[in-house]
Amino acid sequence: MPTVRIVTEADLRTAVPLDLDAVACVEQAFAALAGGGVVMPPILRLDIHDANGEVDVKTAYVPGIDSFAIKISPGFFNNPSLGLPSVNGLMTLFSAKTGLLEAVLLDNGYLTDVRTAAAGAVAARRLARADATRAAVIGAGVQARLQLEALALVRPLESATLWARDADKAALCAAELSVRLGFPVTTAPGAESAVDGADVILLTTPSTEPLLKADWLRPGQHVTAMGSDAEHKTELDPAAIARPDVMYVADSLAQTRRLGELHHAIAAGLVAEDARFPELGQVVRGDAPGRSDPDRITIADLTGTGVQDTAIATLALARAVEAGAGSAFES
Amino acid sequence: MPTVRIVTEADLRTAVPLDLDAVACVEQAFAALAGGGVVMPPILRLDIHDANGEVDVKTAYVPGIDSFAIKISPGFFNNPSLGLPSVNGLMTLFSAKTGLLEAVLLDNGYLTDVRTAAAGAVAARRLARADATRAAVIGAGVQARLQLEALALVRPLESATLWARDADKAALCAAELSVRLGFPVTTAPGAESAVDGADVILLTTPSTEPLLKADWLRPGQHVTAMGSDAEHKTELDPAAIARPDVMYVADSLAQTRRLGELHHAIAAGLVAEDARFPELGQVVRGDAPGRSDPDRITIADLTGTGVQDTAIATLALARAVEAGAGSAFES
Repeated sequence: MPTVRIVTEADLRTAVPLDLDAVACVEQAFAALAGGGVVMPPILRLDIHDANGEVDVKTAYVPGIDSFAIKISPGFFNNPSLGLPSVNGLMTLFSAKTGLLEAVLLDNGYLTDVRTAAAGAVAARRLARADATRAAVIGAGVQARLQLEALALVRPLESATLWARDADKAALCAAELSVRLGFPVTTAPGAESAVDGADVILLTTPSTEPLLKADWLRPGQHVTAMGSDAEHKTELDPAAIARPDVMYVADSLAQTRRLGELHHAIAAGLVAEDARFPELGQVVRGDAPGRSDPDRITIADLTGTGVQDTAIATLALARAVEAGAGSAFES
Repeated sequence: MPTVRIVTEADLRTAVPLDLDAVACVEQAFAALAGGGVVMPPILRLDIHDANGEVDVKTAYVPGIDSFAIKISPGFFNNPSLGLPSVNGLMTLFSAKTGLLEAVLLDNGYLTDVRTAAAGAVAARRLARADATRAAVIGAGVQARLQLEALALVRPLESATLWARDADKAALCAAELSVRLGFPVTTAPGAESAVDGADVILLTTPSTEPLLKADWLRPGQHVTAMGSDAEHKTELDPAAIARPDVMYVADSLAQTRRLGELHHAIAAGLVAEDARFPELGQVVRGDAPGRSDPDRITIADLTGTGVQDTAIATLALARAVEAGAGSAFES
């Protein structure tokens, strides 16, 4: 009888904080993705229009990692009116040798939050100027908080400005982040003023129209756009990707062509459908250059990959076992 | 905090035996599939060639059922050499209103076995002659046993013959089935002699070449072919589907065109790619005729559908709750 470990969100929050270990874990996952041999099928997507809901299932087999995760992420957008969070879900972890179930991680989306924020830190570490001290955040949700926190792990931040459509949420988010991170996070009256003078710009919304204009970008800035994970979402003016002074990097080119900001630049006819761009994992491995010129503008387009899920779930199970967290089931 | 119920295989075996309730549950699922409004995305498939493994993820939203299942089925074919079963996996069940996780059913494939066998019973109930007394079984695995057991629920069987490549396994399977079902199950020296004189023929193997020849079929016989659930698998001579005296019925035409026996008949040029055939759910609903002529030959091509998973998982959770089985987790 195989033993399956069930771990709850509370234990996972303790076991896998957003820290440099999580960043390293996700960084290795990107390197593995670029190194070849990874099997990452297209996302399974179930739409339940009757309930304004959608479910994504992601997975990836990564050679060298003994397990593979299958992540189920439901997003039901009427939930807030019922007092429930929109995004929930779990990760399941299987042996890559036998297919036996090893763990059920009842994370309600927490591990996704961490691996998504960690990807932002990887992008910043490889693409943002090493002396970046000032950040701009667009958005006031969970990822607005976690992306800035992750960035602070890898860059010597001294201040941040934040803008979101809802001014009250923006003020609350900025106040919380100031306390949490120990440097001033202030709100800006608009997106343009928020990004003015920023070294790193974090786009963290589910917007369906561009929030950052191409001609707002200044030499040396780095942009991480992590909100677009579906065809209809976009935060970035597609003309930004086509700017000659911009270096564009995808988490997975196959995905950003279909789902990411790149998809909109292709649809607008600004970029060829088969145009080649480096992937983040290639930059991590040194197979593609990272930031070489301090005045270059860099853009990381993050859609979220199954390799990140496999990596973070494997880390989570190892930590849970180490800490004796979770319940063992003979299935 | 949502409550999630974790139920083990042992409890699920008690809660959901293969009985007429399970058959009715799956029959309703097929009717729902044919009734429209079902959302059933293509199967997610992860291949891990390094370990001779594959994983299928299936799901379906069925209007009128309050929950939807996502089933994860790993098949790792080196496992027997390690003393482990090839097929494992679990089902997860979510609210179709909120997307919240309701249950994790650690069934190791048991519920799939039941819903697959139940589909065979539905096919036989609608397509086999009511006075069918003699069955033939090709194969000696789990589904050889369960398909015959399911058939015995819906037809007045008096005897069965069985053939499988491995004569020892065939003898053991026949002996077990005789005891379990209370009528003689004998082995035959070959597939042709096994099916000779049978009213219902059950094809239950993972064969990659046809085992049943088209010209062996006799008036009035019903064939359920349930082994082909992937492109390379086939048990039935493709010419059988093209016989003018044959009525062919698919569980899901979209799937059998890609994965089922029909796929091979299309590939062989015997059936047009867009040829229309009835689906089992249409027969259940009365939107397509079942068996009308006692001399007609009928073939049911079963590839396995996500609606069956959603239906059986919903039944399993209801039964588990009723029986107080499983452990509740605050996730």
